[in-house]
Amino acid sequence: MAETLDPKNWLELTELGQRIVAEMADHLAGIRDRPVWQPVPAEVRDELKSEALPVEGQGLERAYEDFRRLVLPYPNGNIHPRFWAWVQGAGDPAGMLAEMLAAGLNPMLAGFNQSPALVEARVVEWLSELMGFPRGSSGMLVSSGTMANLLGLAVARNARAGFDVREEGLQGQVPLVVYCSKETHGWARKAVEVLGIGNRRLRRVAVDDSFRMRMDELRAKVLEDRAAGLRPVCVIGTAGTVNTGAVDPLEELAEFCDSEKLWFHVDGAFGALARWSEKLKPLVRGMERADSLAFDLHKWGSLPFECACLLTRHAEAHRAAFALSPAYMTATDRGVLAGGVPFADLGIDLTRGFRALKAWVCLKTHGVRKYAAVIDDNVQQVQHLQRLIDASPDLQLMAPVALNVICFRYAPARIAAERLDDVNEELLLRLQESGRAVISSTRIGERFVLRAAHVNHRSRDEDFDELVSAVLAIGEELR
Amino acid sequence: MAETLDPKNWLELTELGQRIVAEMADHLAGIRDRPVWQPVPAEVRDELKSEALPVEGQGLERAYEDFRRLVLPYPNGNIHPRFWAWVQGAGDPAGMLAEMLAAGLNPMLAGFNQSPALVEARVVEWLSELMGFPRGSSGMLVSSGTMANLLGLAVARNARAGFDVREEGLQGQVPLVVYCSKETHGWARKAVEVLGIGNRRLRRVAVDDSFRMRMDELRAKVLEDRAAGLRPVCVIGTAGTVNTGAVDPLEELAEFCDSEKLWFHVDGAFGALARWSEKLKPLVRGMERADSLAFDLHKWGSLPFECACLLTRHAEAHRAAFALSPAYMTATDRGVLAGGVPFADLGIDLTRGFRALKAWVCLKTHGVRKYAAVIDDNVQQVQHLQRLIDASPDLQLMAPVALNVICFRYAPARIAAERLDDVNEELLLRLQESGRAVISSTRIGERFVLRAAHVNHRSRDEDFDELVSAVLAIGEELR
Repeated sequence: MAETLDPKNWLELTELGQRIVAEMADHLAGIRDRPVWQPVPAEVRDELKSEALPVEGQGLERAYEDFRRLVLPYPNGNIHPRFWAWVQGAGDPAGMLAEMLAAGLNPMLAGFNQSPALVEARVVEWLSELMGFPRGSSGMLVSSGTMANLLGLAVARNARAGFDVREEGLQGQVPLVVYCSKETHGWARKAVEVLGIGNRRLRRVAVDDSFRMRMDELRAKVLEDRAAGLRPVCVIGTAGTVNTGAVDPLEELAEFCDSEKLWFHVDGAFGALARWSEKLKPLVRGMERADSLAFDLHKWGSLPFECACLLTRHAEAHRAAFALSPAYMTATDRGVLAGGVPFADLGIDLTRGFRALKAWVCLKTHGVRKYAAVIDDNVQQVQHLQRLIDASPDLQLMAPVALNVICFRYAPARIAAERLDDVNEELLLRLQESGRAVISSTRIGERFVLRAAHVNHRSRDEDFDELVSAVLAIGEELR
Repeated sequence: MAETLDPKNWLELTELGQRIVAEMADHLAGIRDRPVWQPVPAEVRDELKSEALPVEGQGLERAYEDFRRLVLPYPNGNIHPRFWAWVQGAGDPAGMLAEMLAAGLNPMLAGFNQSPALVEARVVEWLSELMGFPRGSSGMLVSSGTMANLLGLAVARNARAGFDVREEGLQGQVPLVVYCSKETHGWARKAVEVLGIGNRRLRRVAVDDSFRMRMDELRAKVLEDRAAGLRPVCVIGTAGTVNTGAVDPLEELAEFCDSEKLWFHVDGAFGALARWSEKLKPLVRGMERADSLAFDLHKWGSLPFECACLLTRHAEAHRAAFALSPAYMTATDRGVLAGGVPFADLGIDLTRGFRALKAWVCLKTHGVRKYAAVIDDNVQQVQHLQRLIDASPDLQLMAPVALNVICFRYAPARIAAERLDDVNEELLLRLQESGRAVISSTRIGERFVLRAAHVNHRSRDEDFDELVSAVLAIGEELR
């Protein structure tokens, strides 16, 4: 009898699976009563770090018990209602079950003549419609915002270089230049480095007082580069910057790129989803004119990781950037390969899992209107936090609040200005260690500031009251 | 009351989840009795393609019913015991439950001070040990074999270019050259194109009669390129080629790269796992000397998609290729960010899901010995198929069988040689449409051949008997 990984007894597997479902549901239902984050105890850490390679199996039940004991209590914390440290979605119980379905059915999503490929195609059409992109736009789901953005930039590079990048490479060619604001996320640097353009050719354009890209600076830099014999190819606008949630002047960027024949890429990692709300939609106007747009469904969409999306209105350029036709996967008219491997032709991965299923299931389960309500609520909760900050003499707002990100610091008059960075740094660590709330920090200008980035569908107004109480109490401790 | 995506009634969610577990277990337990693949019926296709964007939610139960009706019966087929079309793992029920746990806990794996990061680090150490890499090697889990390979090539590019690739880019620099065999998977072309090296600088070295890279040709091409003022940086060896399962002369390649100061990258997408079997290990000797190695756990490791791995013995070069330190994610000594974001610093993605959990759970559940037994069995089953082919006057073996891939065709003496391509192409489509077994095709030389690539832990010898019966019966039909 051949060896198999299937269980000898399917009923036992079912019963264990049902226990797991019940215990995970209990864990999530009770998450509010746990610490947001707690350090991994030394003995747990030691056990995780030293466990020998399992040569003999111990069975699923024991592996699950180890998970419950060693892993479940000690994640980074983003499923908790008082986690606003980074834009990491809180997850979704419906998405959890959808992931199980995807893993059980386990289809391979290079393409193929199968329902899962039709599901991904439809999900991309829905997202395209939600983002205001024209019919016939191209897109796909990928792992991360950085990946979606990098793929968009790769399409831009190949479409606007003026030579055959795929065949010739960049070596010995006229240098290409990419533009973004100084507030753009680190993905842009990583992308130009991976793509061979080089960090030197990524121009960081200055921002205004609201942290939005300055059009006059952009225009000047493009002119300067052209005069120097370089080739500007792409401008990156951001809908929701990582530090402050600022939105670049997207309409003006679209106009400018149009007139200058530059590719207009928008990083809308979380901010793009503001468009799903009728109320917030005006904040990202112009985004729908982008040549390509990247955004995440595992941030403000709360899908379990990983699920990001790249859209582009240039379906031909998208395919032209990546399509290959290996001999063992040539499309046929009938059979499993009818239609070929269209998704593999739109990005780097050939093997692709069924991440579209969680998007399909969750959109159908909740409906867009519920997502919009969560997004509206989150923005209002940040405004509630802003009012609490404004009302406290010991707290200071450090940047305009454009959307769902807020930067502030603990700054009572009695503490000397030069000590504020240190005080806030220690305050932040103690806050995290308290398990009461988890926020993060960043630098605004030269100053260390506390930062809450809110995409959490589990949060309520009182959670922000708790945050402010905790910050003030820890601040008192630090006197 | 703020809107949330959590269920109003957790008990209902639990009950539905438990029903889903039971029904998925039933589906997998009975998979052998279903067709391997069946075309999506027209009415199902129409419904999937035309469903309007869900503005209002319909609830999880209805979404799940749609999944059962529209999606579950029509995947590409790799979970079935008679699917050997491409190297797509059949999945693993333990992995299915682990994916649910990962999605429920939903930690973000850029790094952070959390148990999930310790799990990923340990899994990578286990894999490093299994692959014979030295202690202190660097690695991470990524989406796909293409991605793992591309990242390995990016490290090679940056480490061996002789200039600062990240800062300067490739423009205006001496052209870099990469070498692989003509039988190398399409990932290599995609990678040099994405990385800006260009397809022109990817040298396809000729192969011998066993489809292994020819060392003399490699040596000659490197010399020639150096003489022409180009800069050879990396040689790609393959452990298990996609067309025939051939293994390049890895020991000789390691020697050569060592003496020529070239980076030695090995693509072991499925073949690397041969090393887990004491019996098969000699086939991939030399692989452990690679500077970097890419392989998949969702192929011969049967993990649900997606889970690939990149390993490199050059931990510093790995980090140097990708590390960034954004202000809002600066590592601290304490708190959630203690230790920083080490995984984000090893690749493209910043947001990363907990794909390590399924590897951890399944390795602990089954143990390496069981995986090795599955791998041994699969190789023996392919040898069984080879004996059936050899024993049939109407079937012809088309390439040496090195591992788990076999190429053959239906070639009875009565069919004229020039008709064989057409006959086999039609035979393949009818076989797939019959739902009895799904294999694929490729081209060997100029000839269309049938191809079975076997990484399926559900298969038994009699499944291959069924394949041969089906091929011969359909061949008869085609007379």
